Amino acid sequence: MNVLGVNGSPRSYGNTAKLLELALEGAKMEGAETERIDLYRLDIKPCLGCLSDDQLACRHPCPVKDDMSGLYEKVLSSDGLIIATPVYWYGLPGPLKNFMDRLTSLQNMIYHVGYSLLEGKVGGVVVAGGRQGGVITAAEVIASLNYMGFLIPPWSYAYYAGLGDALRDKIAVLGAVNVGRVVALAIKGHSLSERWFKSDLELDPIVKRVRARVEKLREKEEKERREIWAEKQLSPSPELNHYDS
Amino acid sequence: MNVLGVNGSPRSYGNTAKLLELALEGAKMEGAETERIDLYRLDIKPCLGCLSDDQLACRHPCPVKDDMSGLYEKVLSSDGLIIATPVYWYGLPGPLKNFMDRLTSLQNMIYHVGYSLLEGKVGGVVVAGGRQGGVITAAEVIASLNYMGFLIPPWSYAYYAGLGDALRDKIAVLGAVNVGRVVALAIKGHSLSERWFKSDLELDPIVKRVRARVEKLREKEEKERREIWAEKQLSPSPELNHYDS
Amino acid sequence: MNVLGVNGSPRSYGNTAKLLELALEGAKMEGAETERIDLYRLDIKPCLGCLSDDQLACRHPCPVKDDMSGLYEKVLSSDGLIIATPVYWYGLPGPLKNFMDRLTSLQNMIYHVGYSLLEGKVGGVVVAGGRQGGVITAAEVIASLNYMGFLIPPWSYAYYAGLGDALRDKIAVLGAVNVGRVVALAIKGHSLSERWFKSDLELDPIVKRVRARVEKLREKEEKERREIWAEKQLSPSPELNHYDS
Amino acid sequence: MNVLGVNGSPRSYGNTAKLLELALEGAKMEGAETERIDLYRLDIKPCLGCLSDDQLACRHPCPVKDDMSGLYEKVLSSDGLIIATPVYWYGLPGPLKNFMDRLTSLQNMIYHVGYSLLEGKVGGVVVAGGRQGGVITAAEVIASLNYMGFLIPPWSYAYYAGLGDALRDKIAVLGAVNVGRVVALAIKGHSLSERWFKSDLELDPIVKRVRARVEKLREKEEKERREIWAEKQLSPSPELNHYDS
Repeated sequence: MNVLGVNGSPRSYGNTAKLLELALEGAKMEGAETERIDLYRLDIKPCLGCLSDDQLACRHPCPVKDDMSGLYEKVLSSDGLIIATPVYWYGLPGPLKNFMDRLTSLQNMIYHVGYSLLEGKVGGVVVAGGRQGGVITAAEVIASLNYMGFLIPPWSYAYYAGLGDALRDKIAVLGAVNVGRVVALAIKGHSLSERWFKSDLELDPIVKRVRARVEKLREKEEKERREIWAEKQLSPSPELNHYDS
Repeated sequence: MNVLGVNGSPRSYGNTAKLLELALEGAKMEGAETERIDLYRLDIKPCLGCLSDDQLACRHPCPVKDDMSGLYEKVLSSDGLIIATPVYWYGLPGPLKNFMDRLTSLQNMIYHVGYSLLEGKVGGVVVAGGRQGGVITAAEVIASLNYMGFLIPPWSYAYYAGLGDALRDKIAVLGAVNVGRVVALAIKGHSLSERWFKSDLELDPIVKRVRARVEKLREKEEKERREIWAEKQLSPSPELNHYDS
Repeated sequence: MNVLGVNGSPRSYGNTAKLLELALEGAKMEGAETERIDLYRLDIKPCLGCLSDDQLACRHPCPVKDDMSGLYEKVLSSDGLIIATPVYWYGLPGPLKNFMDRLTSLQNMIYHVGYSLLEGKVGGVVVAGGRQGGVITAAEVIASLNYMGFLIPPWSYAYYAGLGDALRDKIAVLGAVNVGRVVALAIKGHSLSERWFKSDLELDPIVKRVRARVEKLREKEEKERREIWAEKQLSPSPELNHYDS
Repeated sequence: MNVLGVNGSPRSYGNTAKLLELALEGAKMEGAETERIDLYRLDIKPCLGCLSDDQLACRHPCPVKDDMSGLYEKVLSSDGLIIATPVYWYGLPGPLKNFMDRLTSLQNMIYHVGYSLLEGKVGGVVVAGGRQGGVITAAEVIASLNYMGFLIPPWSYAYYAGLGDALRDKIAVLGAVNVGRVVALAIKGHSLSERWFKSDLELDPIVKRVRARVEKLREKEEKERREIWAEKQLSPSPELNHYDS
């Protein structure tokens, strides 16, 4: 049982990444093996929309050459997929949208072999935003995954909205861990008559593990990110506003 | 195995109703017993939003007295729920929205008994619209059902968009029948590794049955509807534009 | 210059109503006369979707007999309309949706006189929700108003998300006052090259006035609402959770 | 008076491009000078989300080096912006989303100079899709532009949904031309009490001009696109399905 987590945030240590780590912890809790991918570290080119010229021109393998080749294999060999996204103008950031758009070649196999190569996989989504836009973003992902052939288990999305640290928002933490749990439960064929969402999870050790992991990533990456601003003489405010989505 | 279909259109014979009948046929095909409810024939009062005063004030049974009492029982005793809706300004018509809003008292039992009374039910949606707005409407329903505790099986929404007869749109017909099928399959615990969507269904007899059923409803109801206009000296155009959503 | 504010919340004193009052204060600040309507106090029946039988059957005056008659007149004689809504399952509550749906008869005059009776009016929206769903709700309203013929001025929506008092959220307060301001500015023909959003407004007196007004409404109405629960032996929790959306 | 049109489709000759050309014709009709940009021909890198580390780190000029530099200047010197997009999984394709996301540095100047550099510009959107998803896509763009500071004139979005040629869909053509018109009218300070949408436009010469223009682009580009498939031994179906979105 493999669950793939895809981080669509430019930051490996922000709130989006935290929610994803929480979800993957939830999946592990139910016996899944998990892997996390940071899309901004990969070269994922845009979808060329071949099916608009000819419905049959779009098929797997997609002719565009980039890191999506390896990622297609990971998606195909996974049983569950968790999309983690910040809210960028009420939707997914461009690189994550490229990833979603490129999944079309797997879905469009309907026209070649009679079914979507994604049918029967299980999907979930976690969203982090500064203020609002979580639902419109989550709903777009869920509806898209569902129309690609994914099953969406009960309570399969969670969000954090705010300028603080998502790991301190108990509702967001509980929700995100459960997103991973329910994805794994659905893969295992959990009975519909049993409980799915679990509210009495011991969250502290999970939060601690996730925090340790993202703080290590932050150390490495935050400096690098600051150099981007420095290059242009952009002066970040002295009191950093850790918004972190 | 019970699947409840809720028609949110004012018309019992329009495209929304047709799509619902198709979905219920699909559910029957997989062994479900089905029931159809026409919301406009019932008195469903608005949600009073009690949980905004106090999270614990909202609970089942809801204190509002109307036909929702019986409908709550039907929802609770069903295994699957299929929402059928026309597109009214990019969302559900008011009466259907009242129905959805009133389901809150079942979901909010989380705060009283620890779980949503809707958890583990299976949801689907069919949408009919004159032109556009199908996805935003379907996505709102799917995201809402999912957050109430519903499982959403692969391919669980379908739509017809146009001014004609939905029963003549093969993609819409096939999609709608499959919405019912996948809802029933999920209830039965269908394996994720088997096919869900079936494209080689024999649709003609189904379409014929559905057409007969809605035409009978049209005969009764259309006259009644026309009297509403007549009363105000509204003159319908001589060549009727059978839009039917 | 008349600006009509429509409260779609069941409560006259909650966060939705507060945001609406703030917006109307903003409109007054720019010289508008304002009026507030509480939809839950009126009888607004559902739209019958006559145009689905015949595009020409839908026209003003709508044949449905209820309080919408008076409301149509108010809408027609207003220059601006501000919709205030709580987030109910990622959309408008049923009664507000009924109101929006019924505006169709004004828009559909396109097919009778060549233009929408709503064309050239100015629209804004304020949204209050417990957690998320503000953007999907606001976007649905804005897109709907725009397609009815409304002009949407810069920064024409604002939201509060949370379980507390919207009047204490400075961003929400500033946003809501500006929604009213920009609606009035657009009516006055404000130049595009001048500022629209004003962040240095003196908000304290406005907040004070609005608080006084809603507290008076709360006194009257909260008791009435509590009686609804009492009737069913529903016991609100002793520590009230003033969610107020 | 300058109106900038941004084509977010990979194809310069498809339905999205056609709708954009129609809209720009509409803008010219009202006296605007227009320019069209094809995003897929440019290098637009993703937004790095600097404001999540520090709200003040995001500012104009954005430190990311690519073709956005020139595009920022075009946006800043334009009075109106028309976004043209295909529907890719119920939203914008990645490259167009990158463009939208990168506009954040202009909007976020609120925190540096007190106002959005986009305030008071006028926005519109045209959408082409194979089946559904037009409204959710348009609503996301409209809500985003509005919150960046754009004014949205009446009737500022139009869509084509289908597998055929958008230029043959009269409603889509009329709608798209009017999107350009109303953007130009709003820039000119058109009175709210006059008509905005014009249904009696002579469309034939416009359609002819647009068709000539896109067919020339198709000749050049279609071959190039087909070579992408050929490279991978992908065999397009002999009967081409001109979907064209």
